[in-house]
Parts: sequence; structure tokens; C-alpha cells
Amino acid sequence: MTRWPPAPISGLPTEVTVYEVGPRDGLQNEPEVVSLAVKLELIARLVAAGLRAVEVTSLVRPDAVPQLADADELLSRLPASPGVRHPALVPNLRGLERALTAGAREVAVFASATESFSRHNLNRSRSESLRSLAEVAGHARQAGIPVRGYVSMCFGDPWEGAVDQGEVVGVATQLLAMGCAEVSLGDTIGVATPGAVVALLSRLAGAGVGMGTLAVHFHDTYGQALANTLEALRCGVTTVDAAAGGLGGCPFARSATGNLATEDLVFLLDGLGVATGVDLAALARTSLWLAQHLGRPSPSRVVRALAASLDA
Amino acid sequence: MTRWPPAPISGLPTEVTVYEVGPRDGLQNEPEVVSLAVKLELIARLVAAGLRAVEVTSLVRPDAVPQLADADELLSRLPASPGVRHPALVPNLRGLERALTAGAREVAVFASATESFSRHNLNRSRSESLRSLAEVAGHARQAGIPVRGYVSMCFGDPWEGAVDQGEVVGVATQLLAMGCAEVSLGDTIGVATPGAVVALLSRLAGAGVGMGTLAVHFHDTYGQALANTLEALRCGVTTVDAAAGGLGGCPFARSATGNLATEDLVFLLDGLGVATGVDLAALARTSLWLAQHLGRPSPSRVVRALAASLDA
Repeated sequence: MTRWPPAPISGLPTEVTVYEVGPRDGLQNEPEVVSLAVKLELIARLVAAGLRAVEVTSLVRPDAVPQLADADELLSRLPASPGVRHPALVPNLRGLERALTAGAREVAVFASATESFSRHNLNRSRSESLRSLAEVAGHARQAGIPVRGYVSMCFGDPWEGAVDQGEVVGVATQLLAMGCAEVSLGDTIGVATPGAVVALLSRLAGAGVGMGTLAVHFHDTYGQALANTLEALRCGVTTVDAAAGGLGGCPFARSATGNLATEDLVFLLDGLGVATGVDLAALARTSLWLAQHLGRPSPSRVVRALAASLDA
Repeated sequence: MTRWPPAPISGLPTEVTVYEVGPRDGLQNEPEVVSLAVKLELIARLVAAGLRAVEVTSLVRPDAVPQLADADELLSRLPASPGVRHPALVPNLRGLERALTAGAREVAVFASATESFSRHNLNRSRSESLRSLAEVAGHARQAGIPVRGYVSMCFGDPWEGAVDQGEVVGVATQLLAMGCAEVSLGDTIGVATPGAVVALLSRLAGAGVGMGTLAVHFHDTYGQALANTLEALRCGVTTVDAAAGGLGGCPFARSATGNLATEDLVFLLDGLGVATGVDLAALARTSLWLAQHLGRPSPSRVVRALAASLDA
């Protein structure tokens, strides 16, 4: 694999935390259930490739998301990796209890910026959902466990269209107020463009939210994820969610296909001389290996381009 | 198709010329020969979708590129479209004669930034190639025909690796000096990242090249094309090459797969409130229609995302 000399641009962070969501956000959307052994190997390979934050599963009801029915066992069998975060998504108090019992040391909770998606996906109003999450966050903090908050539908919503950014700021600040250490802003249906990203981050800064407490989570549905990410970095965000090989999406939102591919992100950051600690070749090999298990090629451009020169 | 409210960012042009290369750069790389009727309908649909610069064919030797063996007939059957540029690529004086005979009113010539690609692709040294192109450009100008110049391998070369940007500046300024009205900077193997784009454009500006005489031509091999384009716009470039549906590549350079998809570009520019005159739905419908003819789905993310909601 050819190494290209880095060419920095001014105004970017020197280091970025890549928050890998493939094992959770990716695999929960696979039509086939992936075996626990493959999941554990995937996580081990991602850690070996240098990823320091890998979201591993979601403690949802096994009958609702059979793809993640092994969440408890996966958590309990996860080897300790010093310096590596392995958050698990918890939808409610029951999920938090399961996560804690199975040994999770970080959890994530999920809110919607819009009323419609909250009712369709979470089956409750946005304010009911936030009250419930505040309870979860409170219990997690009592247990000494950090909490990450997600806000979905930050830019567009399949039912409501364009989203009022004031609503996003409201939900994000509530998540921070209930004790979330980090809030990830999700473009769940992938319709954001860079100006909308800058506008939302400016509004959040205006509301007193530090960029260091935010992450961005773009889906590449319309090919905009990487350009949006670069704008977010320019605004001071230093944590970026991505899924190895561009896995994932959202089964509840039409055309919410594909997270930003971690490989495409790391190619960008390597090119800009921004440190991630991730070994791109090792990561792409992991996605090629996983693609063999899933029986279809990775949607990541980088993985496809490197496929000829790498062995899974 | 939902319309998303534009969110501008400062420092961008208010208007961008999308230079469509699909009929030439795209179709020359198709394994199957596309019929002349389909090519003519493709061009007509692209114009109807609002594109004002559509490169239509290349006057190469029919035995070398059978996909474009109908170049003369295509040019002579092209209907006049007031206000629309229809350049044809000409590799040499013979090609220029054919283009003029068939009624072309704009031509494009092609140079390599690197010695290796020049020898492998053009079968002559870079300086021999530039001397020959100067002759072509001189004859075209005598005939009152504007000339566009391409520089390929501006960022990386499959044989040489990283490319010295001084070499790119040298070739680009020679093309301008020989009378090219516009020079398109090609990232033929898709390895550029935004910092390299800024660095090259700064060097060109330092050499006295106006950004208005440049175009950028990114391939999306590693998913970087749109982020690179946005940086180029920020530097003052206002002409962007793209191929409808993400067609194309370069048969002579390994892994040079896929131009930036015009739809992904227009989605970005629509989102930023930058005028292009292009109707995104009509364009995506054109790519869906062409994909049916080519027998495989479009690689454009936008085209795939819109496929369910549009009829070809």
C-alpha cells in the first residue's frame, strides 16, 4: 500500500478520536445474524488496528433485534483492553442493568431530535424518552459508568423533513445536563451538507456547549459524510463516529444506508496529517475479512480500492 | 424528492460550472460499446437537466478505444444547443482535423504531470507530448476554437507515487501559455486529500495562475473527491468536472475507478446554496436510465438513495 505524504491544512485538530460503531450500528442492520465468534474477532481486530473506542453492542430486546441477541454474552466475554473504550448502547433501565451485570464499563443512550422519529422508533414522545434516559444516566453515574448520548435526526427527518436546529440544541443540552460525557450528533438519513453542520455547531457553541464534548455521526447516504466531517473538525470537533467498511444504517428510517466508512475517514485524516492511531491497512483487511463473512463487498471506497493489494 | 433548505458557508463562489465528463471519460471505460443512439440521448438528457458543459467524445483511434469509434458521427449528429459547450477530446492533430470536420466548436487536450504516465499512456515523453499539444492548440486557435487542457496525475502516479507539485505547475502553465482557455487538474488515481489540493492551488496562484482559468477533476477511488472539491471551491476554483452517476475512470491506471458523481456534487452545491442550474432529480433519472442500459447500478450514492423514489 503506497503511503502518501501528509499535507495539513490549518485550523484542524492535531489528533482525532475515531469512535468505531461497526459492531453495533453496523451489525444491527445486517439481514443475517453474525455469530458471536465473528463479532468477538471483529472487535479484537478493530482494537489491534489501533481503534481506541469501539461500541460493541446494544442491550435491546432480543426479539426486537435478533442480530444483537447475544449482547450479554458478548459483553461478558470481551477481553480487557487497557486504554480501549467499549461502550454498549442501552435503551432503558433494563438494558443498563443487563449491561452492568455483563461487565460494561461505558454505556450510550439514544434520543431523537424530532418528535416523529421518537414516536416511530422509540415508541414514546421525545420528552418521555428524555425523562427515561435521565433515569438511565443517573443510575449509570451512580455505578461510576460514563454515558455517551446520541441525538438522531439532527439535520433531516423522514417524516418531518428539515429539522429545526433549535430542537437539536435543546435535546443535546438536555443530554449533557443529565450527565452525558459526550453527545454524538447523528445525521441519521444522511442529508446534511457542510453549511448545515457549521450552522448547528455554531448554535451549540452559542448555547455554551464545548466542541470537546461533541462527536459527529454522519451517514454517507448522499455521499456527503466526509465533507461534513471535515467541516466539523474545522469547527473544533475532535471525535468522529464511523463504521469499519461503511457498514450499517438504520432499519427504522428509509434510505438511511451506510455509516461513514472508517477507512475513508482514516484515509482523509492520514492525508491531512491528523493523528488517529489507526493502521489503515490493518483496518481495511478487517473489513475485507468481514465482507467475506457477510457475503457481499464492503461499500467503503477505500476498502474496494485496496482489495486487490491486501489479504483479508 | 424532499428539498432541503440551503445552508451556505462563507468564502464559496455563488455559482459553479459543472463540467460533465460522463459521455467521454465515463463511456470510454465501459466494457461494452454503448450505441450511438444511447449516447445522443444521454447528452440530450444531460443538457435537459441543465448541464451547460458536456464533453461528448474523444477523437482517438477507433481501434484503440472502440467505445468511442463513433466519435465523428456523434459530433456531426449533435444538435445545436445554444449556450451549451460540447468539447471533444483530441489526442493529436489528426484528432483535431477529425473534430473540426465533424463540426466540433471546442476541443480538449490531455497532458500528464508525470514522465511515467506520459510514456505509459501517451507513448511519448512529457516534453514531446507538450510540443505536440502546442501544435494542436495553435491550429485550434487558428480555427477559432477554444481549447481546454487536462493535466493528469496531479497528486499521485501509479508508477512514481507522490507527484512533485512543481511539475504540475510547470505542465499547467505550459498548457495556459500555449493558449488553453481552461486547465483541468486531474487526480487520476484519486489519492488527493484536501491539504494537497490547497497546496497545489496555492502554488499555482503563486505562479500567477488565476483560479478562474482552472477546473478540478477528482476521482472518488478513496472517497475523497467531494471533500477535495469543497476545498478547491474555497480556494476560488469555480469549474468542477464530474460524471453523471459516477461513471468512468481510466483504463490505463490501476484502481483509477470512478469520477466524482455529478449527482453527489450537485447535492453538495444545492445544500450550500451554490447555483449550478442543474436539476438534481432530472440528472439522477438520467443516470438511472443509463444504468439500465449498462446493466449495473450507478456507483453514485445520491443515485442509489434516490432510486426508489424516481423513475428513469
